[in-house]
Formats: sequence, structure tokens, C-alpha cells
Amino acid sequence: MFDSEQLGPVNSRRCPHSTCKSRPLRRPSSDTGKLAAPRRLLASIITRRYPSSFTLAPSRASSRLNLFSRHFDSKPFLELNTPFSTERSAPLEDDQGNLAKPKAPNIAPAEAIKEQTPKKLESREKKPQPVMSSQAPHPALLIPGPIEFDDAVLQSMSHFSESHVGQPFVNTFGEVLSMLRKLFQTSDPASQPFVLSGSGTLGWDQVAANLVEPGDEALVLHTGYFADSFADCLETYGVKATQLKAPIGERPQLHEIEAALSEKAYKILTVTHVDTSTGVLSEIKTLSETVRRVSPDTLIIVDGVCSVGCEEIRFDDWGLDVVLTASQKAIGCPAGLSILMVSGRAIETFKARKARPTSYFGSWKNWLPIMQNYEAKKASYFATPSPQLIHALHTSLTQILSRPLAQRFEDHKAASQKIKKAVTSLGLKQLASKPENQANGMTAIYLPDGITPPDVLPSLMKKGVIFAGGLHKEIAAKYIRFGHMGVSVTDSKRPDINKAIESLKDSLVEVGYKAD
Amino acid sequence: MFDSEQLGPVNSRRCPHSTCKSRPLRRPSSDTGKLAAPRRLLASIITRRYPSSFTLAPSRASSRLNLFSRHFDSKPFLELNTPFSTERSAPLEDDQGNLAKPKAPNIAPAEAIKEQTPKKLESREKKPQPVMSSQAPHPALLIPGPIEFDDAVLQSMSHFSESHVGQPFVNTFGEVLSMLRKLFQTSDPASQPFVLSGSGTLGWDQVAANLVEPGDEALVLHTGYFADSFADCLETYGVKATQLKAPIGERPQLHEIEAALSEKAYKILTVTHVDTSTGVLSEIKTLSETVRRVSPDTLIIVDGVCSVGCEEIRFDDWGLDVVLTASQKAIGCPAGLSILMVSGRAIETFKARKARPTSYFGSWKNWLPIMQNYEAKKASYFATPSPQLIHALHTSLTQILSRPLAQRFEDHKAASQKIKKAVTSLGLKQLASKPENQANGMTAIYLPDGITPPDVLPSLMKKGVIFAGGLHKEIAAKYIRFGHMGVSVTDSKRPDINKAIESLKDSLVEVGYKAD
Repeated sequence: MFDSEQLGPVNSRRCPHSTCKSRPLRRPSSDTGKLAAPRRLLASIITRRYPSSFTLAPSRASSRLNLFSRHFDSKPFLELNTPFSTERSAPLEDDQGNLAKPKAPNIAPAEAIKEQTPKKLESREKKPQPVMSSQAPHPALLIPGPIEFDDAVLQSMSHFSESHVGQPFVNTFGEVLSMLRKLFQTSDPASQPFVLSGSGTLGWDQVAANLVEPGDEALVLHTGYFADSFADCLETYGVKATQLKAPIGERPQLHEIEAALSEKAYKILTVTHVDTSTGVLSEIKTLSETVRRVSPDTLIIVDGVCSVGCEEIRFDDWGLDVVLTASQKAIGCPAGLSILMVSGRAIETFKARKARPTSYFGSWKNWLPIMQNYEAKKASYFATPSPQLIHALHTSLTQILSRPLAQRFEDHKAASQKIKKAVTSLGLKQLASKPENQANGMTAIYLPDGITPPDVLPSLMKKGVIFAGGLHKEIAAKYIRFGHMGVSVTDSKRPDINKAIESLKDSLVEVGYKAD
Repeated sequence: MFDSEQLGPVNSRRCPHSTCKSRPLRRPSSDTGKLAAPRRLLASIITRRYPSSFTLAPSRASSRLNLFSRHFDSKPFLELNTPFSTERSAPLEDDQGNLAKPKAPNIAPAEAIKEQTPKKLESREKKPQPVMSSQAPHPALLIPGPIEFDDAVLQSMSHFSESHVGQPFVNTFGEVLSMLRKLFQTSDPASQPFVLSGSGTLGWDQVAANLVEPGDEALVLHTGYFADSFADCLETYGVKATQLKAPIGERPQLHEIEAALSEKAYKILTVTHVDTSTGVLSEIKTLSETVRRVSPDTLIIVDGVCSVGCEEIRFDDWGLDVVLTASQKAIGCPAGLSILMVSGRAIETFKARKARPTSYFGSWKNWLPIMQNYEAKKASYFATPSPQLIHALHTSLTQILSRPLAQRFEDHKAASQKIKKAVTSLGLKQLASKPENQANGMTAIYLPDGITPPDVLPSLMKKGVIFAGGLHKEIAAKYIRFGHMGVSVTDSKRPDINKAIESLKDSLVEVGYKAD
């Protein structure tokens, strides 16, 4: 079944791109060939309307076994890691932060659009922004993180200064760690939570520096940009990262993973639970069962940056070894914290390592006794944490745990379904075409052909809604991302989701798009 | 002059402690032999009062050339890095954050103390805490960081959520970077500021991962705990760190540094501008001149965590290569940011490195284009920064730069002199006995013999003042640290400094100490 000849070169240091078999990645919209009947109709309407380049590519599901590729550090020395640069896209605002006029779209002149829908839009635009209780009026931030924050969480950010080794703060930190156990659904006392100052990315460094050693093998399941980056991080630490890639919008299948695991002894397997660049959801439970069956010694590392707090994760039941995340997404606390849950098995692996950890700030050798002390409400010190961020995290975790977690995940599913239905009824497609691949906290939406993010994002901003542009390098200009996590979903008083759906509809109309 | 025979072993991996010549480090108070006449009198009074162990050790300045030692990773695998653990000292508060009763001091029974000063203390204790404008009432945090924060800075921490790639936030970040150039007094366009989510410690990792390569040599000037840690960090990255140690309270002398630099080609030299564990100030200007003269290719790395914002630093004029710091000390912004200024020369060294940086989250390969884009007010992305912390930093830097920097440094000197005079008049000594070694933003104070931090800190806390305990492992139980940075010094409406001096006096009286 599995053709090992089709693996990329693993031992040479040549750039893999010339030998890369990942042809489906070059397709602008890989799922167009697999639309269900009603959506195929919508696609044909769009194709009629914008015939220039919106083509239906044939499915290449049969070539999925070609998709193994090896990650190399082949980028120019200081190339940007992402398409997120104004070098490549028009700014939404001018230097003073004022909204720039949207660029005239290339499918209809701006004047024509204005004449098309003049009164309706003007009345909307003059409406004052809703005042969100104690926060200054501002557009609703509906990108896949940072998200909108609850008032009480933001107020906790202004907590007066405290000593990082004083008992009141130590108690707060200790409670945060205990609450994280509940959020990750682990009651195994051998599990160990970590909270460090940093971004989600620091979680990758922690895995790479503490759980693997130079020369170790890692299997990286690829569902978007963040697998490339995690692999890049692992290679930085001398780990051999082999990527198992799926076409954009899909995920590696269990039989492919099983085949890969049978080929080689991997120290760790990494999976992005929700890839923020594509909105693709990975299925963790059966993945874990497969890994445990085929390669029981392989540690299972879940990048949960865009999933913890909005997708169910049962750390103990699913036998996970690391789930890493950040504060600013579904957990609902401002950015600045790298958050991890580590299994007892992973801690033992760490303690058994031959060489010292290959990071200092990210070293569990330095942090493990500190975290254990904090949770025991004993003061200790390695590096100064951020008391204000820890207070905000305490507030957000308290809010999350005040309701059943199952209800929280259901709320996110319901909001996601509502949004995905609206997207479909607008005649738009998602990067993740199959329902089982669709995240519940974000939606990555292909724009109609000929419309790019800089055409539509400023118009959304004028309506008080901020979406994100594309992040997957190969198709960044073709799609937008709508984040629906945290209070925008769970606080029924907030109009964010409905307003965003309406605004998307109106903004597309403004640039000349009409869903039939 | 310089006896290379006295250097510790440099190539073996044996623990150095058996061969370490750092005898003065074993003295409990190395400077007692060198007191000026009036302070000698005070010391003799204290000695009469507490004759048990407060002995005057002879000066060993002549043995300074013995103090070279090599840093090794000889600690147990998970030993705590510091004495900051409740395993080793009594907590100040109980589990609920309430003040614990101070431990009965071992020099006088608690009852006796209570009878000694009953009414005066009770009236003080019943006074409500001063309300600090918009902040909840709280004790004044006068540890050497985190410090007290200005209201406007804390309010900026509650900023509503913004996209990290949206123009308003990008503008704010860009202005922060430009303001940092002013704070560090650099107008060289080749200099490069960095601001990352993390603690000050992450600055060490950035130096170790970007400027040196495995096998490179580093000379680490030791004035306290933080040199040990920086050396430990460098060793983590495979760099050979040689420490040049001074007795507690002193700093390596120029002729010693010159001798060391003549012995070996060091890629970098690191110096802690103010060591937070000892309050020792290093002199940077003449140090830099010496390094440039003796070893012009050696990069000069200044750990300015406890100095940037309260001690003068002229980045260009002094020819520095890296000054690294954190947000929560004299810059006056909550913890959570690692801040660096890097010279054009250091950036060139980084770009010329043979191997890729040995960190991912701390890699300038990843961050340099991002910082350059932010400063040019262009959106780009590597890892999500913390918009709230960046807003707070923007506010604090705006406040700092609204007055001449020279005035700010003078204010800190004046407050420091006032405090040091009060400490002396109380008959107490500093770890840094010589004025030229004394920091301007903190004071490390030896307690009278027989009195330990857990005796006096809870009493200070009751009076609304938080000081820190000792941090230098060998003498941690013998001294306390008083931080005097930022708004506590520059805001004339704040009573912090005077209140702290009075409280220290009263608290010592409470535990039975009397200065004659």
C-alpha cells in the first residue's frame, strides 16, 4: 500500500523542492472537484460570473501517498516567514491608523458599486460603533487570534504591581495551574502544566529543546503553515523533521500516518489540532489510538494554539503527551503566555535525556521545579513571570470553568455551523471543504475569483468587523479568515457573529459580488 | 602581574568547586574590613550588641587575582536556581495571602518587642493604605523589580483587543522601537532594537543563540547571581563561559579584565550593569574603552535588566554591542517583555555566522525582518506579540522621554543617596560597600547579625512596604533588597521612599534592633 520510493530524500541536505511530490499544493483550490451537488451549482454560478481563472481542478485524492516531503532550511537567510507584510498587500489604514479607501476592485469600477447600493451602506456606515461596556468603542476583532476579550479579563491586566514571589501572586499562579488541569481534562497527578512568558511559538521550542535530542526523528503532520514552522523549529534544534503533507484543506489520513510510522522509529509525532492558516481540524482521538498501536513509544505532541478552549481535548483519555497553546485565542486572555500540558510519560522522557536541554529560557530543567512550587503555592524563582498576564489568565480560566466544558464546545460548534452555513449560502467555499476537516473556532473562506483580501477587508473594517487575510503562502491572496472563539461566541449579549455575517455579505456586494 | 596559573581548569569538564580559588566569596560580609571610620564605629556598636557571629574579616583585596573561575553545569539536574523557595525561608503570608505573624526573632522574644513599642506601632498599623489613584489600595512594591507602575501604564494594559498585524497596533509597535533608540541613546541607524514576549532571561538566550556559536569563548564578569545564570545560559548553547569573579559587593577591576582578555580571544564579554542580587553597579564606559583597546573584536554585552531607565547608558558613545533588559524594572512597564538594543557590528556578526541560530523563538533570523518592518510601520508576522504589553511600554516610554533623560538619572541618584544615607545612619551596611560600586536603582542591605529577612519583611509588609529578601545564594539569609526605581522615585506625589525608610527603621526596632 505504502510506496516508500515516494518519500523525499531524508539524509541529504539538498533543497527538497525540486523533488517534492506535493503537486496538489500547487492547485489554487484543491477541493473544487469534490463539491456536493448544491455547492457545485453555486460554484458554477461563480464560474459563470468570474470565468477568468476559477477552474474546477480534478480531484487528486489518489496521489495522496505522494505527499511525503522532507523539511529543509532552504529559505533565504532573512526571508519573512509569512505573507504578512505590507510589501505584499495593501494596508488597511494609513499611517495614523485611519481607514484607507478600499482599493478599486478589478471586477467592477468603484463608482458602479457605489451606485449599486448607496443608501443601505451609508446608513450602516454612519451608525456609531457599539460601546462594549468598559472597553473603548472598537471594531470587533474576529481574526483567529487574538480574539475579543471579556471586560473582567482586561481589567485584570491592570492589576496593581505585585511581587512575583509574594504569597498573593504565588497563590494566583498556583490556581491558574490547577485550573489548566481541568481545561485540558487531566486528573493524572503526573501531568505537568507550564505557563511561561512568550508566545505560542515558544511551545515549539520547549518541545524541541526538552523532549528530543539532536539527531532524533520527528514526524510532522502537515495541515498548513504552522506545520512548516514547527518542522523548522525542530530542525533548528537538530531534530530530523519529516513532514506528512495533505492537500490544502485536508489532513493526512490514518492509513498514511500508520504507513509512515511503520517506516521509521519516530521519537515524536506532531499534529496541529487546528491550523490557523487553513482552518483545518485534525482528529486527535483516533490519531492517538493509531500511534499507540503502531508506534507505542512515539510521544504525541498536539499544537493546540487555535484549539484549546474551543475544541474538546481529553488529555488523559486520549493519551496525549504534550498539548501546547497560547493565551490569546480560545482561552480568551491577552497574548504573551506560552501554555503547555505535559504528560508524566513525557516528563520521564525529559528526565531521561542524555544531554541537557538545548534552550535556557525554555528549559524544563529550569522551569519544572518552579511550576511544581507554584502549584504547591510555594514561592520560587527562575525568571520573572508577568503577574498581570497571570491575573488575566486566572480570570479567563475562572470564567471558562464556571460552566460545563461540554457546553462551551457545543456553543463553539453551533456558532461555527451557523457561520459555515451562511458562508455556503453566500456561494463561498471553505479551504476545508469536508465537514470533518472543519475547525469550530475559525473558518477560512475562499473569496470569489478576482476579489482579494485588500478589496474586502477595509470594507469589513468600516462596518466594525476585523477579519484576517490569508496566511497559507501559496494561496494567501485568495482567502480570508474569520475567527469565532471565546466571548464573541459564548456571550449572548455580543452581536459579533451576526454582525460579521451581515457585514461579509454587504462587503461582498460592495465589491460587486452577488450570490444567486 | 597576572598569574595564569591561578586560572581554573578550562578544558576539563570536572566540577570547579574543588579547585576554585574564590575564597572571599565564602566570607559572610567581605567588606567589613574596609569600613570608613564612622561606619567602623557603627559596626563596632553592632558587634557589641550582637557579638555571636558578626566578625570583622580581614580584607583580602590582595587575593583578587585568585578569583578567576570556570563555570560548569555541576548542579543537580533539577536543583532550583535560586534561594527563592519557601522550602528555605518562611512565607510572608498564609495560603490566603494574609500576612503571617513574623517569626519570633532569635535575639529577643516577641513579647518583649511588643512591649517595647506598642502604641506607636498599633497606630501605624491601623492607618489605611494610601489609595493610589485608580489602583486598588496595596502595599508599595519596593523590590528590585517588578516595581510600582504608573496609573496610565496600567490602564494601557487593559487596551481593547487589536490585530497584531493591523495598522494601529503596528504604528504603536513602531513608535515603541523608535523610542527605545532614544532611551538607549543611539542614533546609529545600524543599531537594531528588539522587543519580544518573554522575560529578561530571554535576552541571554538571544545573545547565546545569535551572536556566539558552539565552541566560542565568552568572558563573563561576575558581580552576583546573574553572572552565574548568564554563564549557565551560554554553556547551554555550547559556548565556553569563563567567569571573572569579584568578592561579594565588588566588581572585577579593569586591570584584571585586561589581563583576562590578553590571555585568550573572547568572542563576547558580558557584564551585568547592576546585579539585582547584590546591588553592585559596574562601570561601563571605561570598561568598554578597555575592551576596545585590548581586544577590539570582542563584542560587549551589557545585561541592563536592572539598569536601563535608571542608570545612564550611552549606547553609541560607549561603543556597546548589546544592551539587554526587561520591561518590569526601571522602564516601568509590567513584566513580560524582553528588550534589546543591538549594534550594527553585532548584527553583522550575526549575519556572518556559519551555523543557523540555535534557538527558534529567540532567533534574530526570524525576528530581525519583523522588527525592521514594525519600525517602518509595515505589518509582518513571525509570532504573535502582546498588544497590551506593547501599549503599556508605549505609555511608559512616552512618559520617560517627556523629560530629559539626564534629569531622570539624577533623580534616581538623589533618591539612592538619600536611602543609602539613611541605611548608614541606621548603622547598617550595604553589600556594595564602596560608593563607586553602588547602584542607583536599588540598595542591598545587610541585616544586623541574628536578624533574617523572615523576621523583618512581614513587619515591613504590615506597614505597607514590600522589600525583597536576599538572592545571592551564599548570603541570602543575611540581607534584604530595597528597589527604588521608576515612579516611586520620579513621582514626587508618591510617599514610597520616605515611607520605606521610616518603615525599615520601625521594623528593625520591632525586632529589637537599636541603632545608636
